[in-house]
Amino acid sequence: MVNVGVIGCGYWGPNLIRNFNSLPGANLKTIADLDEKRLHQVGLLYPNTHKTTDHREIIEDPEIQAVVVATPMSTHFPLGSQVLEAGKHLFLEKPMATNSDDCRALNRLAAARGVKVMIGHTFVYTPAVRKIKALMDSGELGDVYYVNISRVNLGIFQQDANVVWDLAPHDVAMLNYLFEAHPVSVSANGRCYVQRDKGIEDVAFVTLEYPGRRLAHIHVSWLDPNKIRNCTFVGSRKMLVYDDVSPSEKIRVYDKGVDVQPHYHDYGEFQLLYRSGDIFVPRIDTVEPLKIETDSFLKVVSGQEENLSSGEEGLRVVQVLEGACRSIAEDGKPIPLKYDD
Amino acid sequence: MVNVGVIGCGYWGPNLIRNFNSLPGANLKTIADLDEKRLHQVGLLYPNTHKTTDHREIIEDPEIQAVVVATPMSTHFPLGSQVLEAGKHLFLEKPMATNSDDCRALNRLAAARGVKVMIGHTFVYTPAVRKIKALMDSGELGDVYYVNISRVNLGIFQQDANVVWDLAPHDVAMLNYLFEAHPVSVSANGRCYVQRDKGIEDVAFVTLEYPGRRLAHIHVSWLDPNKIRNCTFVGSRKMLVYDDVSPSEKIRVYDKGVDVQPHYHDYGEFQLLYRSGDIFVPRIDTVEPLKIETDSFLKVVSGQEENLSSGEEGLRVVQVLEGACRSIAEDGKPIPLKYDD
Amino acid sequence: MVNVGVIGCGYWGPNLIRNFNSLPGANLKTIADLDEKRLHQVGLLYPNTHKTTDHREIIEDPEIQAVVVATPMSTHFPLGSQVLEAGKHLFLEKPMATNSDDCRALNRLAAARGVKVMIGHTFVYTPAVRKIKALMDSGELGDVYYVNISRVNLGIFQQDANVVWDLAPHDVAMLNYLFEAHPVSVSANGRCYVQRDKGIEDVAFVTLEYPGRRLAHIHVSWLDPNKIRNCTFVGSRKMLVYDDVSPSEKIRVYDKGVDVQPHYHDYGEFQLLYRSGDIFVPRIDTVEPLKIETDSFLKVVSGQEENLSSGEEGLRVVQVLEGACRSIAEDGKPIPLKYDD
Amino acid sequence: MVNVGVIGCGYWGPNLIRNFNSLPGANLKTIADLDEKRLHQVGLLYPNTHKTTDHREIIEDPEIQAVVVATPMSTHFPLGSQVLEAGKHLFLEKPMATNSDDCRALNRLAAARGVKVMIGHTFVYTPAVRKIKALMDSGELGDVYYVNISRVNLGIFQQDANVVWDLAPHDVAMLNYLFEAHPVSVSANGRCYVQRDKGIEDVAFVTLEYPGRRLAHIHVSWLDPNKIRNCTFVGSRKMLVYDDVSPSEKIRVYDKGVDVQPHYHDYGEFQLLYRSGDIFVPRIDTVEPLKIETDSFLKVVSGQEENLSSGEEGLRVVQVLEGACRSIAEDGKPIPLKYDD
Repeated sequence: MVNVGVIGCGYWGPNLIRNFNSLPGANLKTIADLDEKRLHQVGLLYPNTHKTTDHREIIEDPEIQAVVVATPMSTHFPLGSQVLEAGKHLFLEKPMATNSDDCRALNRLAAARGVKVMIGHTFVYTPAVRKIKALMDSGELGDVYYVNISRVNLGIFQQDANVVWDLAPHDVAMLNYLFEAHPVSVSANGRCYVQRDKGIEDVAFVTLEYPGRRLAHIHVSWLDPNKIRNCTFVGSRKMLVYDDVSPSEKIRVYDKGVDVQPHYHDYGEFQLLYRSGDIFVPRIDTVEPLKIETDSFLKVVSGQEENLSSGEEGLRVVQVLEGACRSIAEDGKPIPLKYDD
Repeated sequence: MVNVGVIGCGYWGPNLIRNFNSLPGANLKTIADLDEKRLHQVGLLYPNTHKTTDHREIIEDPEIQAVVVATPMSTHFPLGSQVLEAGKHLFLEKPMATNSDDCRALNRLAAARGVKVMIGHTFVYTPAVRKIKALMDSGELGDVYYVNISRVNLGIFQQDANVVWDLAPHDVAMLNYLFEAHPVSVSANGRCYVQRDKGIEDVAFVTLEYPGRRLAHIHVSWLDPNKIRNCTFVGSRKMLVYDDVSPSEKIRVYDKGVDVQPHYHDYGEFQLLYRSGDIFVPRIDTVEPLKIETDSFLKVVSGQEENLSSGEEGLRVVQVLEGACRSIAEDGKPIPLKYDD
Repeated sequence: MVNVGVIGCGYWGPNLIRNFNSLPGANLKTIADLDEKRLHQVGLLYPNTHKTTDHREIIEDPEIQAVVVATPMSTHFPLGSQVLEAGKHLFLEKPMATNSDDCRALNRLAAARGVKVMIGHTFVYTPAVRKIKALMDSGELGDVYYVNISRVNLGIFQQDANVVWDLAPHDVAMLNYLFEAHPVSVSANGRCYVQRDKGIEDVAFVTLEYPGRRLAHIHVSWLDPNKIRNCTFVGSRKMLVYDDVSPSEKIRVYDKGVDVQPHYHDYGEFQLLYRSGDIFVPRIDTVEPLKIETDSFLKVVSGQEENLSSGEEGLRVVQVLEGACRSIAEDGKPIPLKYDD
Repeated sequence: MVNVGVIGCGYWGPNLIRNFNSLPGANLKTIADLDEKRLHQVGLLYPNTHKTTDHREIIEDPEIQAVVVATPMSTHFPLGSQVLEAGKHLFLEKPMATNSDDCRALNRLAAARGVKVMIGHTFVYTPAVRKIKALMDSGELGDVYYVNISRVNLGIFQQDANVVWDLAPHDVAMLNYLFEAHPVSVSANGRCYVQRDKGIEDVAFVTLEYPGRRLAHIHVSWLDPNKIRNCTFVGSRKMLVYDDVSPSEKIRVYDKGVDVQPHYHDYGEFQLLYRSGDIFVPRIDTVEPLKIETDSFLKVVSGQEENLSSGEEGLRVVQVLEGACRSIAEDGKPIPLKYDD
């Protein structure tokens, strides 16, 4: 049984709390939040868990072996450092930190203390993404030429980070996992529409180049009233569309068939020439990704499972985000990416 | 009654032929194609129309006032020049020519001969696009911040042009029409996957900047087995999605509603937080765009209607395409765009 | 080459004319319609075809071997009789006649004259229906327990027939073809809403029982503003949904998977429990059914192909319609069905 | 604060438990189930609630004012009787009892003891259904001619009730609520496919006639691998489609527009003639219906709200189910319905 403390009951924290609370191998010992009212409200569901507005009660509790940090991005580094300094395992929400130097410092600290760091790259633990990985590994898609992603919705406009830092970590982590590789360059265009005076981008188009000249294009936005989570994987054999918003048809695999005929005889026939192959919609488990993720964290801590979203992965994702923002500042200039290892 | 000749019975020509044939104000006098078999096959439907493998029979026929050129892109300039030299009105398929200098030469020639040039920018004549224009003009969408377009399918791999020249003219012409403006800069990334040795891009991501820092992002591809014609217009008041492939719901207008709540209580609630407002799906006429386009050509020729896809517009579209290709060659560097007038 | 005459250029006739005109084995010699204006309008597309307001010109033309009758239902019997009396093959629109006795008379006449009768049961010639037949025959669906059909739209309110006679022939003919059997009883409920004073039903629910206690339930309506052509086939192994209105996904085959879990932990999970198996969407040819149907008629006439919608089949369909209407009159009482052969 | 006891932690009970537990006005005091393992498992989430395998601990607890019964249908009457005898308010799952006499007995008992009975007719409390009611009441749909419902899925095959008793109570209760009326007759066809030997129908087609000759047709089935919850309301002005399975577009309202033209010029145009009017998709609250229902129960108990699913309503629903089953036994014969009051 691992005693777990959670710092942060805001937007995402309650989901982590709920999942750690229902894991057989974890004991949700303490939750902390600066906002007393929020703490009380969330805490009602967990009568046997200790609540505190002072996160040091968690850091200093010798019975707590693992700490979950789900606070605003700018506090990831200071809070993460305290957790690791205290020799405790750390589950840190994405993005790992506001810059790559802080990520490196956290990784050095974890190595020195002999504890684990896992970053909350949820999509690595999502059943649909794992199905895509299986389909890619089996050769079903052929060579994946490029990936086109839209991740948009009428979001909460962050005050301390732009839309790239807010939404793109999901995609970069997912793509790194699927390709088992890291982008060699990034270029990006962004715009500040709603928070123009603060200079915080709310829309961006990011292009990653992976080894083998594979492209990944990511569109992120806070402006759309509609939630879209759409990823299209175009391979030499088949195409796969992953719609994370669809409840029952998250993944669709499109066969290529015979080529469409080169001309049509009437307008209707033209309208009908939509596709040339079969479509397959595999069944996907409806397990909550956070359940798999939190369960994996426990197994990583106890050495039973490989860490699929380690601090090293967290660093690489942050390096891509840094590159994307530099490219936006330089009007879309491609930025080459080098990783430490 | 305008006597019309058509040069080119290949991919697109038969559609123009069919439409001109059924227009009350036009007489389809002659059709020409180098390929005798193709000419015969298409000609069967038009027993009273003269067929020839020598396009000069059309150029030199004094009874023909207007000529339609629907041939490969590289022949647009030489054939168009002959038509204009002969003092006939010209309907020229898009893109107008392979470079902007040729476009300028055609426009000068038309001015000198006092004849009209119309470019086949079909989407300017599409009922759904006109509905979008009406919604934009009425202020229904508010300020349009940005547009995101996907235009992809398992296409015919062109031998003499890349995917930008093949597909993007539609989008650039449509956007120029809707915004009543022209992009001030373009940047683009492209890749050659299937025709790698020939260096012909089959996938590209193009970003246009329109005046007022409005962005338009265009994804074009020949690689997808599925036909996608999707344009998302994000405005300050509402969002509009235009799915040209949908037979019955081409346009959907999404209201913004109350903001989504900042956190959720369970995974299902999370999944349900899709949208916050009403959706409206207006009825769109099912008239074939080519019918409107060819009818408009006749009216432009007779001076009854403004030319919405003039040679000047054709030139501006080609300038954008040139800029996009230059940007691809320079790894996505933004290229500023200046227009002659 | 078969010389063909067509009587009736109204709602459906032009489609038959267009198809017979483009068949290599047919020569569209004459078309007839009482409405001179309509005749002229349709005839414009067929400059080399003779037009007449007197259908006897077709009946009495010794060069015409086959006659197509696409006129209002009440004229099927008298016109069909004249065609057969003249020793010509007959293509007769559905339903074959207004009562089964007339059908029997037509069949006797055809036998006596040694000519063929084909009824326009279009769905028997529809690629999607043939795909369903192939899937049923291969055992893919297992035993088909029941079929549930909706065929509704804001239709043309017929003056001389109710909605059962107008729309249900399609379904009965399709089901007879798919099951290779004929219903043993029928019950039906109907209502007259819009044409209440004329007593013409515009909505009906029809239940057919096929041998083996298989049920087919058909909902027909003229009142819906939306066109729905939906057939669900529930089998012991799989379920198939045929949506004739979908341009790209006409057929979807649903696998049964593991059973859904018997309870859920939250509302969202409840919402997610939609299905338990894979879905397969086979590619369907986009050939126009009428093209296959008219081609088949020529082959039946020349003895090259079996008649899939013979006069005998037409009679059986009419017997079912008669039974349905009797049941409506008796408030849904089941009516047993017996066939002549 | 109302002290609540819940009898039954099986399929549906946990959802009621979860909702009563989170209601501010309720105190979930005791839960009971015969299955000790199930009780333990569900109870883990409610550490402060008493658990027992003996439901009499609830019945006999003087501090408990209201009891929820979520047990198999056959126990509704005996358990409900005990609750009412003990002078406690009763929330009873649907259907109220296995026959109308038992319903009448429960209602008499409640009246004698001066306590309330509410039946779990969830759809009466569903936001989408309330939106439909508002649209109907406002005249938006015009006169509702008929309703067509499909409620099917690969269900849990009940051992003690057929598919009509299992699924149709939802629809009958919903329709009675929407029409503010009760059906005057019912006819039904049913079949036993999977449990043929037990004679338990797993598929049925039920037709209800409401006053004013309005029809409601209900298709219920346990056999479909896909969950379908589709209700189409056809009115004289508009049509409404309610798809309870859609997460984001539960209700669609279809305008009638201009009539479709009576004939088409090509196959494609035919395919395009889908609809003639605008579509409106109103935003629907994503509140869990059970939250509204359980909250309403507390308010009914305290006299603050009208009882929308009273024992009298429960009785009327059961009378319709009885009639439907009688009609199935008599091969679809229409059964007239009379209500006590």
